[in-house]
Amino acid sequence: MTGSGHSLNFDLHEIGGRAIAAARLGVRGANPIVGAIVVDAAGRILAVGHHRGAGTAHAEADALAQLRADLDSGRIDIRDGNGPADWTMVVTLEPCNHTGRTGPCTHAIRDAGIGTIVYGAQDETGEAAGGAAWLAAQGRRVIAGSDVDPAWAAAARRANHRWFAARAAGRPFTSLHLAQTLDGRIAAPDGTSQWITGPASRHHSHGVRARADAILAGTGTILADDPRLTARLADGTDAHRQPLRVVMGHRDVPADAAVIGDGRFLHVRTRDPREALRELASVGVAHAMIEGGAAIAGAFLAADLIDEIWLYQAPMVLGGGRAVVVDLGIETLASAKRFEYDDVGEGAVQRCGDDVVLHLGPAPAEPAQPKN
Amino acid sequence: MTGSGHSLNFDLHEIGGRAIAAARLGVRGANPIVGAIVVDAAGRILAVGHHRGAGTAHAEADALAQLRADLDSGRIDIRDGNGPADWTMVVTLEPCNHTGRTGPCTHAIRDAGIGTIVYGAQDETGEAAGGAAWLAAQGRRVIAGSDVDPAWAAAARRANHRWFAARAAGRPFTSLHLAQTLDGRIAAPDGTSQWITGPASRHHSHGVRARADAILAGTGTILADDPRLTARLADGTDAHRQPLRVVMGHRDVPADAAVIGDGRFLHVRTRDPREALRELASVGVAHAMIEGGAAIAGAFLAADLIDEIWLYQAPMVLGGGRAVVVDLGIETLASAKRFEYDDVGEGAVQRCGDDVVLHLGPAPAEPAQPKN
Ligand SMILES: NC(=O)c1ccc[n+]([C@@H]2O[C@H](COP(=O)([O-])OP(=O)(O)OC[C@H]3O[C@@H](n4cnc5c(N)ncnc54)[C@H](OP(=O)(O)O)[C@@H]3O)[C@@H](O)[C@H]2O)c1
Ligand SMILES: NC(=O)c1ccc[n+]([C@@H]2O[C@H](COP(=O)([O-])OP(=O)(O)OC[C@H]3O[C@@H](n4cnc5c(N)ncnc54)[C@H](OP(=O)(O)O)[C@@H]3O)[C@@H](O)[C@H]2O)c1
Repeated sequence: MTGSGHSLNFDLHEIGGRAIAAARLGVRGANPIVGAIVVDAAGRILAVGHHRGAGTAHAEADALAQLRADLDSGRIDIRDGNGPADWTMVVTLEPCNHTGRTGPCTHAIRDAGIGTIVYGAQDETGEAAGGAAWLAAQGRRVIAGSDVDPAWAAAARRANHRWFAARAAGRPFTSLHLAQTLDGRIAAPDGTSQWITGPASRHHSHGVRARADAILAGTGTILADDPRLTARLADGTDAHRQPLRVVMGHRDVPADAAVIGDGRFLHVRTRDPREALRELASVGVAHAMIEGGAAIAGAFLAADLIDEIWLYQAPMVLGGGRAVVVDLGIETLASAKRFEYDDVGEGAVQRCGDDVVLHLGPAPAEPAQPKN
Repeated sequence: MTGSGHSLNFDLHEIGGRAIAAARLGVRGANPIVGAIVVDAAGRILAVGHHRGAGTAHAEADALAQLRADLDSGRIDIRDGNGPADWTMVVTLEPCNHTGRTGPCTHAIRDAGIGTIVYGAQDETGEAAGGAAWLAAQGRRVIAGSDVDPAWAAAARRANHRWFAARAAGRPFTSLHLAQTLDGRIAAPDGTSQWITGPASRHHSHGVRARADAILAGTGTILADDPRLTARLADGTDAHRQPLRVVMGHRDVPADAAVIGDGRFLHVRTRDPREALRELASVGVAHAMIEGGAAIAGAFLAADLIDEIWLYQAPMVLGGGRAVVVDLGIETLASAKRFEYDDVGEGAVQRCGDDVVLHLGPAPAEPAQPKN
């Protein structure tokens, strides 16, 4: 514990790695995934917290709540030289300094009396930033992970690379829904498509819908299927929280379309996915689920505007019929849109009734090659 | 233990279910999957065995070997009223009565002195049948599971339904290899396809190749890619056991094609998949891996001649290019080729490097509706 102002009484590589693993128990959407760990003066882990999605406690608050319960019950006791002021919170993202659906984490950390804060990714964007400076002004020791373990800080940033990209662009985080046969078809040549995937897959995707602020489909899907675009429970009734229903395209939406229903409805008369997301952001949408169909999926993929994919794969082969995405104009393999399986939350690969559900996110751009 | 000749001192539903679960630890191919459990006079499980694929011990021999080791070490001791003659072997498939790569299971069971044998599926086909009758003639109590728990016997049969179908048709068991993008493409519009899947997927598929007796590709793949069709280890060297290399199609195979190499090679000059499998059966092939490409995959799928699928799915989207299977002439969803995810062995769904590998088998035909 000598020398540099950044000395820590634990291995940041290890504890920081565990904080990222905790973050990965979360769910992607309007908010980033975040993990927080509190370590005592002896380097022991006192609490591990993570964020469970928009509207729930932030990771720091989650860890502090555990800490408080353990202090109250006497499972942790405070001694001279090993009290909150001697403790460190390691958090994968700079603590927020603004009041959203929950209070600012900076205040919670100050109120808990935590002496040292080490954060991974910096909150570069938005009104939540500035937490590090605020805590330092309160007399806390605040350490940027990038000064101690740059690889850890980079991994912490990478865990939310698409959330940062969406924030920087001022657009909602987007989830793409795809449901197909083994060979990538969403309808047979005669147009029949109900049902390719089974009830468990549909139920799973309603869970994603219920987390989103908006569900968007193209006029093609509206005119072909007349969907409601509501989030429904397993018994078919509406979920408590309902997203905004959005239709995208130039054609009119019929006045009796189910999507208009009695819920909040928006028609974005554009074929430009950026424009559509701009309109959604302007009405407060932070997480949009792109339901399809093939033209809409293709337009968002081609514009690199998809932040996660939920791919439901039914165990059947059609060998013909409608492809899951329209032609993207890609000529050669090197130009393919590259993703990576993403095991955040439930895992990258799951059985779902008779189907399989795969979860992916865009692969981060290769780090720029150093010029020589 | 009173009354009927079929009374058993254990619950066949439970023990038989465990035997099927043991069978499912095996691997599909030339041989069926089989599980065997030995139960003592008090209804306790003494040994659980399963078959690990062609050339390895049968499930009965596997269980008996464990039993022998436990008797030798004194972990199991024989007492009056609880010796082999009082024990029961529950096996998911009628014990074989012929000498293949291993000796007949019937003899091993007799030599071990097991008093009662309960079997699930009957071995209806081939020269291995007749084990039940032979054991009964040796004075053992032999019980067909269908007489005690028909649902269990049916489940035991269902576990190998495609193996039975292949046997009944006198053709090899077939494994189909497919490697594709998320949207079911195997090449970009300009023909580039190397590499869609990564090294871990290729290594996995070489493991399937090494188990097969033959690997079959169409003349299209031979002329396009000039593959060797060998089974290779992770370091790129040839596996010890090499399958027969088979090319299917009317066109000539160039004299300098890599597939001819110095290995065993066969050109089947036909476009009829049944005819190709007949030729393979006639040279002793019991398990054929269908490597592709799209026309060959389509021909075998259309003829319902695929017994399992290994689908390697790379995390990229092309949105155009060559489809993984050619048009099968299916017009409507109700005619789709239906499969089911199959968790035999490694599981139905696995991460494999950057890719995912899915394992499927054809869904069994619906049981005929009773007429009324
Ligand atoms: N399996 C699945 O995951 C899934 C999900 C949803 C739908 N579907 C199926 O997909 C089928 C409908 O597919 P689809 O492709 O016709 O419907 P779509 O993608 O929902 O809508 C296509 C229409 O959207 C408008 N549009 C808006 N932006 C566009 C853009 N950038 N590029 C092109 N068009 C744009 C165009 O109509 P305007 O002329 O009005 O601008 C276009 O005709 C239905 O059969 C449905 O069942 C499947
Ligand atoms: N991703 C993968 O899993 C995978 C695996 C293997 C190959 N591939 C790719 O697939 C591409 C080749 O595809 P492909 O479809 O041209 O090749 P293919 O399926 O290997 O061969 C097609 C040829 O096989 C012959 N054939 C034999 N039986 C047939 C039948 N029942 N129906 C139609 N044709 C039959 C025909 O040629 P004849 O005139 O000689 O009869 C036909 O032109 C290559 O680019 C290769 O890289 C991909």
